[in-house]
Amino acid sequence: MRLSQLFTKTVRDAPGGEVSKNAQLLIRAGFVYKEMAGVYAYLPLGLRVIEKIKQIVREEMNPIDSQEIIMTSLQRKEIWEQTGRWSDETVDIWFKTKLKDETEVGLGWSHEEPIVEMLKQYVQSYKDLPLSVYQFQTKLRNELRAKSGIMRGREFVMKDMYSLHSSAEDLEAYYNRAIEAYRRIYARLGIGDDTYVTFASGGAFTKFSHEFQTICDAGEDVIYLHRGRNIAINEEVIDDAVAEMGINRDELEKVKTAEVGNIFNFGSQKTDDMGLRFTDANGNQASAYLGSYGIGITRVMGVVVEKLADEKGIVWPEAIAPAKVYLIRLGDNEAVMRHADELYATLTGRGIEVLYDDRDLRAGQKFADAELMGIPYRVTISDRLEADNKFELVVRQNGVQELLTQDELLAKLG
Amino acid sequence: MRLSQLFTKTVRDAPGGEVSKNAQLLIRAGFVYKEMAGVYAYLPLGLRVIEKIKQIVREEMNPIDSQEIIMTSLQRKEIWEQTGRWSDETVDIWFKTKLKDETEVGLGWSHEEPIVEMLKQYVQSYKDLPLSVYQFQTKLRNELRAKSGIMRGREFVMKDMYSLHSSAEDLEAYYNRAIEAYRRIYARLGIGDDTYVTFASGGAFTKFSHEFQTICDAGEDVIYLHRGRNIAINEEVIDDAVAEMGINRDELEKVKTAEVGNIFNFGSQKTDDMGLRFTDANGNQASAYLGSYGIGITRVMGVVVEKLADEKGIVWPEAIAPAKVYLIRLGDNEAVMRHADELYATLTGRGIEVLYDDRDLRAGQKFADAELMGIPYRVTISDRLEADNKFELVVRQNGVQELLTQDELLAKLG
Repeated sequence: MRLSQLFTKTVRDAPGGEVSKNAQLLIRAGFVYKEMAGVYAYLPLGLRVIEKIKQIVREEMNPIDSQEIIMTSLQRKEIWEQTGRWSDETVDIWFKTKLKDETEVGLGWSHEEPIVEMLKQYVQSYKDLPLSVYQFQTKLRNELRAKSGIMRGREFVMKDMYSLHSSAEDLEAYYNRAIEAYRRIYARLGIGDDTYVTFASGGAFTKFSHEFQTICDAGEDVIYLHRGRNIAINEEVIDDAVAEMGINRDELEKVKTAEVGNIFNFGSQKTDDMGLRFTDANGNQASAYLGSYGIGITRVMGVVVEKLADEKGIVWPEAIAPAKVYLIRLGDNEAVMRHADELYATLTGRGIEVLYDDRDLRAGQKFADAELMGIPYRVTISDRLEADNKFELVVRQNGVQELLTQDELLAKLG
Repeated sequence: MRLSQLFTKTVRDAPGGEVSKNAQLLIRAGFVYKEMAGVYAYLPLGLRVIEKIKQIVREEMNPIDSQEIIMTSLQRKEIWEQTGRWSDETVDIWFKTKLKDETEVGLGWSHEEPIVEMLKQYVQSYKDLPLSVYQFQTKLRNELRAKSGIMRGREFVMKDMYSLHSSAEDLEAYYNRAIEAYRRIYARLGIGDDTYVTFASGGAFTKFSHEFQTICDAGEDVIYLHRGRNIAINEEVIDDAVAEMGINRDELEKVKTAEVGNIFNFGSQKTDDMGLRFTDANGNQASAYLGSYGIGITRVMGVVVEKLADEKGIVWPEAIAPAKVYLIRLGDNEAVMRHADELYATLTGRGIEVLYDDRDLRAGQKFADAELMGIPYRVTISDRLEADNKFELVVRQNGVQELLTQDELLAKLG
């Protein structure tokens, strides 16, 4: 994409009142637009990042036999009343509204109950199990405060997956497959090394649920790490967990983290409450076992920004960067412009995504924009470089700079 | 995809209370799930259709230099007050809700005002124009009645595009490019021949706006067609239009239609109201010209179902079918099963999407499902066909049946 055509521009200062680093950087770089506190629109480059994260998640959910669907934002009161979760006392983040006939409806902050209700239509026999479905849904949550940018929004995109099983053992096995799929996702997103499967407060069925926590100063959680045994425990269950696992508290390291995913074993409580049962192989009615598995897509995008950014701006991992290369042409020398155009055509022809800074701006502004936007590879062509038949390549992550011929450059960028 | 793995199933009867043909068929075929009147979830096969329609639209919007973004569902009251459209008297389809601090917020039924507000941040100079942005957004509209299935929902997916220009002439030129892009879209969706650019009631700037109307018995509109001159006029402006164009009313044919798109020239009224102005080449503040261009993605899916379905079920055009081929294996002969598996692998290996009916069901049920689901090509392999080394190919649209060798079949399916 030519930056002369892109309608967004970088800005020097984040808007007043925006206190989170991730939102400040994303707004300054032109990736997001703040509609109100906790509510952000995604502009062309931001949308590209979201779509890349979604695609990685999709590529890890499909192989564990989950099927993509899309539920609705508007939700019926009666469905949530079955489990006691319609009440604002029980769930304090509902947005609710009314149909013309005054019927109260909710706006989806979660989709467990609607999913179970929908699945009743398709699950009658043990032959219909196991099954797994997932969606990328825009969730609406009436958060009292929203000061963490896109890490905790009132409106945000979440991947939520739900699996249904004929036995606790089958759910347990799938739950473990999901943990492995999640590990692959965080590795691909570039935060795998600092992301821990963490014991957290359980629920209906199990003593603990599992969260995925990424070490991050801007995070809202605290976990205790046992690096030797690779165990992580959320602060909220630390007493129970150390007792259960026979860990000495002195061996634990306390770190600030951001939750980037959570998985939950509901056992058969929710399905029993909602009357989703099935006929087993002996012809008897049996309880079904439910697991749920969430990843906040926009939240994890915010965590990546918080964690990897440096003083110059965002640093995207290549897998989710809006483009791989930021191509800068300097000056108005015709040969330079022609060569830059040619290189742009060559790279895009090879399927490499390029932001081509063909704007009539000073070098300093172009370099600053490349750094703020966090594109992995910066390639510059100028009068002086042209004279030597060289391109300058700078790696955003570590600042390493090389002068390369076109062949060398193409070999490097693949 | 193997149907033995797909969690949805076809059902013989549509749910009681569902009066629209499109929703009845889509629910029976397992493509959609009804959450409440006018609110439908999209299951795996339905989501595939939506994504294919979106991709076609995307492929026609990008070449007219429009940039994809995603705005928000939650919207600020103050933005809509600038144009007088916050009031429930003026706009009677708002869903509204409240933040914790009692601040009223709206749920996006349209995005013209939020888009203009956002663009203020990026448009200062004539050099920033023209620009065009579009999104695929889930719109919420508090319709009093919702009896047209996915053709008129309370929650639905819309592609809305907005263009901004420095002059009325430039907007006019872009508006005409958009009309041509829309024509290409409807042609690719398989309803081009019956879709007319139709004069409809105008607004701020122009006498008429333009709708795209598709001849459809289930439609809610009536248009008057002059086939000779290829003119179509919405009933609401018929008097004005015949006068303006010097048409004899006797030459017009009255037909029922469904609106599948609309485009609108706002002139500079909305941007003036909202204070989006720019500095022209002479350094003066000038008015900006706004166009808006909508296509209801789920609506058009419903229209395709209504228009093309027959007494056996849905008939998808190949471009938006959830799969190209419905592969049926009959009986439990091992050679048949092996050959069916091999053909499935061969077809998918060639990038052809296949629904493989590997279920243990009677032939009649499989044929009925293939027809209900509306997959363009049905391929059957059975004992008897196996003996002749033949496959049966049936075209869903016209029922034409052929017995083909594997080579002939592959040549046919590309």
